[in-house]
Amino acid sequence: MIIHSNLDFSFGAFPSSVLITRGLPTLSRIREDWKEEGPFNPLLVCDEHTLPLARKISGGEKVPFCVIPSGEKFKTWPQVETILKEAREAGLGRDGVFIAVGGGVLSDLTAFAASVYMRGAKIVFVSTSLLSMVDASLGGKTGFDLFGIKNLAGTFYPARHIYIALESLISLPPAEWKAGMAELIKTAVIEGDSFLDQVDSLREEYTSGDFSPGFPQSFIRDLMNSKTETLLSCITLALSCKGRIVGSDPQEKGEARVLLNLGHSFAHALESSAGLGSVSHGEAVAWGIARSCELGLALGITPWDRAERISTSLRNWGYEITVPHPLVQDKEKFMKALGSDKKKRGGQPVFVVPNQFGAQLVYGGTGDKTLLESILTQIMNGEINF
Amino acid sequence: MIIHSNLDFSFGAFPSSVLITRGLPTLSRIREDWKEEGPFNPLLVCDEHTLPLARKISGGEKVPFCVIPSGEKFKTWPQVETILKEAREAGLGRDGVFIAVGGGVLSDLTAFAASVYMRGAKIVFVSTSLLSMVDASLGGKTGFDLFGIKNLAGTFYPARHIYIALESLISLPPAEWKAGMAELIKTAVIEGDSFLDQVDSLREEYTSGDFSPGFPQSFIRDLMNSKTETLLSCITLALSCKGRIVGSDPQEKGEARVLLNLGHSFAHALESSAGLGSVSHGEAVAWGIARSCELGLALGITPWDRAERISTSLRNWGYEITVPHPLVQDKEKFMKALGSDKKKRGGQPVFVVPNQFGAQLVYGGTGDKTLLESILTQIMNGEINF
Repeated sequence: MIIHSNLDFSFGAFPSSVLITRGLPTLSRIREDWKEEGPFNPLLVCDEHTLPLARKISGGEKVPFCVIPSGEKFKTWPQVETILKEAREAGLGRDGVFIAVGGGVLSDLTAFAASVYMRGAKIVFVSTSLLSMVDASLGGKTGFDLFGIKNLAGTFYPARHIYIALESLISLPPAEWKAGMAELIKTAVIEGDSFLDQVDSLREEYTSGDFSPGFPQSFIRDLMNSKTETLLSCITLALSCKGRIVGSDPQEKGEARVLLNLGHSFAHALESSAGLGSVSHGEAVAWGIARSCELGLALGITPWDRAERISTSLRNWGYEITVPHPLVQDKEKFMKALGSDKKKRGGQPVFVVPNQFGAQLVYGGTGDKTLLESILTQIMNGEINF
Repeated sequence: MIIHSNLDFSFGAFPSSVLITRGLPTLSRIREDWKEEGPFNPLLVCDEHTLPLARKISGGEKVPFCVIPSGEKFKTWPQVETILKEAREAGLGRDGVFIAVGGGVLSDLTAFAASVYMRGAKIVFVSTSLLSMVDASLGGKTGFDLFGIKNLAGTFYPARHIYIALESLISLPPAEWKAGMAELIKTAVIEGDSFLDQVDSLREEYTSGDFSPGFPQSFIRDLMNSKTETLLSCITLALSCKGRIVGSDPQEKGEARVLLNLGHSFAHALESSAGLGSVSHGEAVAWGIARSCELGLALGITPWDRAERISTSLRNWGYEITVPHPLVQDKEKFMKALGSDKKKRGGQPVFVVPNQFGAQLVYGGTGDKTLLESILTQIMNGEINF
């Protein structure tokens, strides 16, 4: 069990440090940590939900703010332009420090803006959502949606410092807990069963699995009593795992980072065939992990007991993992969406499946194409049971 | 004298090769050169002036085109979006190859779009203006104007291959010759007198110095007769010099690249105090080089005979270098613009002045601030004569 953690990573030429704290960092703490980096000319970027947190961080200090609307549908160029404009109006130079206070959407937008402002300003995150804490904050992917395509425009630009303040989870809605937890489970499956054990302990500590308001309530109680070891340990393990994978291929030139897409090919196909927004990304990822277990079983890569262990955990967390998914009756539409997923290498789809100890890639090479297709059809027909 | 040249550079993690050819490269030549880089899925990007050149490059091959309006005033986000949209509609992936056929504005826009498309696609330039051939094409600076600020948004993203096709200069307007020539002289001053000698030879070969239509005519004649050695040699020397400087600091983190701003602090102040657009950038740079000679003289850094040599060359090329500039009678406005130039380090302005062999930086440190200001005032009063 980890009871305190600061993690230092290096992604290509970019150092990236994670500092996990119980309370929110103050601006003077962030300034103090920045000392060795040069001048500290900050711009606090937040959305309407995280504005109170950003205000708390500023501690009443007079500092430029930029507030943008929250949510995926505002992950677009006009918000990038707003951030750039506020930076300009605040008189920031290339040594300006953009501080994103929020979840994944806000940090992706702010980091993109920082990465292009005067050809590259500085970026710091204060992560406020579980999804961002366990996954999105680390690894340097920035971006925004364009022409209806998620993250069509973006850069690789890791944040220099990432503050993970557990306190900010107090106000996190249940749906956002569920979204973050699915990515946490994903990483635990990649990393191995001892991590998955910790994720299960987390469930036993906090929730009966229904993400009812009881989750945040019991969490707040433990936070107040400084009993957050299991969560802290899970976040640390998730970031360590992601950092190791990203570090081996910071700009996604090879296939190392594809591993982090466990369950995502199925998830994206589910989201797009069910109609964007009708299934949350977290729900879709959990459902997709179950499908990748079935694929691994059919290919003889996933041992039966591991598939069972993973799907039990998913069910206990309250995720819907039955097939066909209640919202997707049209199997053909789903199969078509699966075929057009962007995670392809050389024109062939790549899947990630759990193996004995972690997870591995499976290539839809020409030789196996018919086999793969027939297995996928079996999966969608619910013919692979375990 | 150089009679043929291919130059290979490396900027951080980015290799960048320049291939100088007499005629335009064909698409099949570009494809052939791309062989080792991976798949070749091109998008030709051009403006209305370079569309005929882009068509010639395509050789009738069916290939996606993107035509954007030309000129600095269109160096804005909507054009970036157009390029990204065409790339998307052409079905390009991250291995898509954006081929920019044009001058500096077009290549800056296209390279920016490529640098953010799916977090980084591929970029190739076919340089068609002298300015781009001797300066803008190399070194990885991409960008566009925002809120009236030049290149407020941008990235560092060098082109993998840069084709310099002398043939494309045939249709270059005299004003564009003049703009490119000023940057060529700038680089020659930085590099030393033997390079400046070659630039002077170029003038003697082609023009009486007035950039009249005789320049392109006599150039075309020589191009037809394959007598372009002096120009080829000048372009090669300019790119070698710039490549060496950029290579030592690809992302402009230190001060090496500041050297390339010789004359530019004065030029930007002239352009902004005369009203943007009333003096061409090339004219302004030439005028600024003369002022930096005077600054160097007053500081005892520029030898008298070198200042004389440089200003004689500028005058012979037909540049207006008298002080005050006919278009700027308001010295105070000029001095204010000079003070707010963005090339500052630690709040103090940095100037570049010619020295005995090349050029060097001069810092407006606190101790010398009064001295520097008094010299600048003397320069603007025309009190430093040589």
